[in-house]
Amino acid sequence: MAIDGETTQTQAAAPENNNNINENAPNNYKVTVVGSGNWGSVAAKLIASNTLKLYFFHDEVRMWVFEETLANGAKLSEVINQTNENVKYLPGVKLGKNVVADPDLEHAVRDANMLVFVTPHQFMEGICKRLIGKIKNDAEAISLIKGMEVKMEGPCVISTLISEQLGINCCVLMGANIANEIAVEKFSEATVGYRGNKEIADRWVQLFNHPYFMVSAVQDVEGVELCGTLKNVVAIAAGFVDGLEMGNNTKAAIMRIGLREMRAFSKLLFSSVEDSTFFESCGVADIITTCLGGRNRKCAEAFARHGGKRTFDELEAEMLQGQKLQGVSTAKEVYEVLRHRGWLELFPLFSTVHEICSGHLPPSAIVEYSEHTPKFSLVQGSAQFY
Amino acid sequence: MAIDGETTQTQAAAPENNNNINENAPNNYKVTVVGSGNWGSVAAKLIASNTLKLYFFHDEVRMWVFEETLANGAKLSEVINQTNENVKYLPGVKLGKNVVADPDLEHAVRDANMLVFVTPHQFMEGICKRLIGKIKNDAEAISLIKGMEVKMEGPCVISTLISEQLGINCCVLMGANIANEIAVEKFSEATVGYRGNKEIADRWVQLFNHPYFMVSAVQDVEGVELCGTLKNVVAIAAGFVDGLEMGNNTKAAIMRIGLREMRAFSKLLFSSVEDSTFFESCGVADIITTCLGGRNRKCAEAFARHGGKRTFDELEAEMLQGQKLQGVSTAKEVYEVLRHRGWLELFPLFSTVHEICSGHLPPSAIVEYSEHTPKFSLVQGSAQFY
Repeated sequence: MAIDGETTQTQAAAPENNNNINENAPNNYKVTVVGSGNWGSVAAKLIASNTLKLYFFHDEVRMWVFEETLANGAKLSEVINQTNENVKYLPGVKLGKNVVADPDLEHAVRDANMLVFVTPHQFMEGICKRLIGKIKNDAEAISLIKGMEVKMEGPCVISTLISEQLGINCCVLMGANIANEIAVEKFSEATVGYRGNKEIADRWVQLFNHPYFMVSAVQDVEGVELCGTLKNVVAIAAGFVDGLEMGNNTKAAIMRIGLREMRAFSKLLFSSVEDSTFFESCGVADIITTCLGGRNRKCAEAFARHGGKRTFDELEAEMLQGQKLQGVSTAKEVYEVLRHRGWLELFPLFSTVHEICSGHLPPSAIVEYSEHTPKFSLVQGSAQFY
Repeated sequence: MAIDGETTQTQAAAPENNNNINENAPNNYKVTVVGSGNWGSVAAKLIASNTLKLYFFHDEVRMWVFEETLANGAKLSEVINQTNENVKYLPGVKLGKNVVADPDLEHAVRDANMLVFVTPHQFMEGICKRLIGKIKNDAEAISLIKGMEVKMEGPCVISTLISEQLGINCCVLMGANIANEIAVEKFSEATVGYRGNKEIADRWVQLFNHPYFMVSAVQDVEGVELCGTLKNVVAIAAGFVDGLEMGNNTKAAIMRIGLREMRAFSKLLFSSVEDSTFFESCGVADIITTCLGGRNRKCAEAFARHGGKRTFDELEAEMLQGQKLQGVSTAKEVYEVLRHRGWLELFPLFSTVHEICSGHLPPSAIVEYSEHTPKFSLVQGSAQFY
């Protein structure tokens, strides 16, 4: 706590989105960040700066570190605590002295009533299993994890996984958030999606918000979370356009159609999804960031330049040093859902991306909607989607 | 007419967005394009290809040419009719043999019942005056003119100018439409904004639509038309971000905030404006095209690189060969409206763009919203705007 009196407290407690929270006893909220990769470390830095400023947050921020032994033989968690830096995943950036790395998952979460999940999505099921019965009853969660799986019966939303496994409420935070740019405090925005309790959403906003990281909340967990996954399919399409050198009109059109299909698909899966969510940072802004930079766009550009003659697997191996492309697998998963539900013709962009990735259509098919147009118009004309 | 029998007629008359138009007598609609610059010539090419295919349009498309004498002494209109090419404003592209250039404005519009206006906006008032009493009673108009003026009492919308001066209905067509890219048939989209009559809107869609130029219609003339003007202010902001080398997160955030202010400003001026319009090509896609390329973005980038030490007038003169930047003057006009109505604090991006352009703030102010945030939240929290 960085307070010394009533006046200072009031000032400190009046951040941008204050909404008359009345549970703001000093030190009321203890935060643990579950995850310490690139984005997790940046999240810890954002949070740690705010817990010092706002009296109702406990100063210390625990960060669970999946322990690794570094090349010099030292333990990652110990180096973080000595240097105040995640030397492996966010070198050169001080996290804040009040960030405490903890390699013991159960110990790290034991006292926390605000849990921030930011691990690779494939680890979450295992982490949840380990945490059952080990967290506080009044804990609240937020997921920063992008890229849940889209299964035949619908997407496996991480926030729902957390809620169901741990029996707690779970918000999400998504947006146009390249971690390294936020780490050096370049201006950006993010969106918190919440389910019902605005007070809790506002607390998450207070925890993350900075003048250079503007956070706003919308009551639409699924809409916000689906944006984070589906954008990668659109980025593949945008990469094809880049590789074909189609120009800015075409790229803008493809990004727009992609955003529309994200919106329609999300609304078909969850009737609660709001159109307005797609105007938020998690929607239009994240589409822009991901389609301008990003590895999905980059590999798709190379794929189109090679006329589809080299596979994504080859290009991934060559260009991404072992990282995998989420867009290609998400496109396949989305395609399965569309086929299963008879919606293929309603989503020409999503389905074409998969058909190109799997070698059934040439990259140039990404702009050949003419034969799809009558079916496409069904979507345009349907109040159900729009 | 390119038809030879009932079957062919039916096929030709069933384009994508057909909506049971029942006034489709052969040759019913005669089209004149008023304007023959770069975009006007491309529009004539798009239209001329469709009038040949669809039997209810008269084949011939008149194009009014503001007569010029070329360097070799020839008249522009005569060269267009001889070569079928606008050698000055769209060299290398055949317009279609059924395009007839006509330097006589009154003669060009005399028989037309579909008037396509596509001139520089400052000429429209004079053109309207000349056309009073000279057009057919049943004429319909569409404006492709971007960049109407925003006056203190509100924007001077070109479609309203045409409607009021000529006593006819006027739609608009806007979108992510770099003319030269459409001329070479690269895929793009556009949006028709109409006031009430869906049948008329569908006819405009039929006139412009191609597999490589997908047009859809929304019932929101003002929303569509304001997009075409306000995007230039956002492009200035995006250019500042480029010049400051702030990265993709920041650029995406600024584009998103710009789109939001476009939406809020349009809705405050015209309560009929729909949120959904900003998801169309005229909205999000045109923002993307304009903020990726475009002269407003480019000059603003140079302005920021020079730390605001060289004026926009200097940079324009140096970089644009006599063309003027619409964004800078529109930002000033918008600022005057905001100040006049007491809305400055609700639009931090719009007002900051003008304050930077006029030298009252440094370019870096474009991302310094922290002090504006509480006011900004008013916009976020108000159902009136969002």
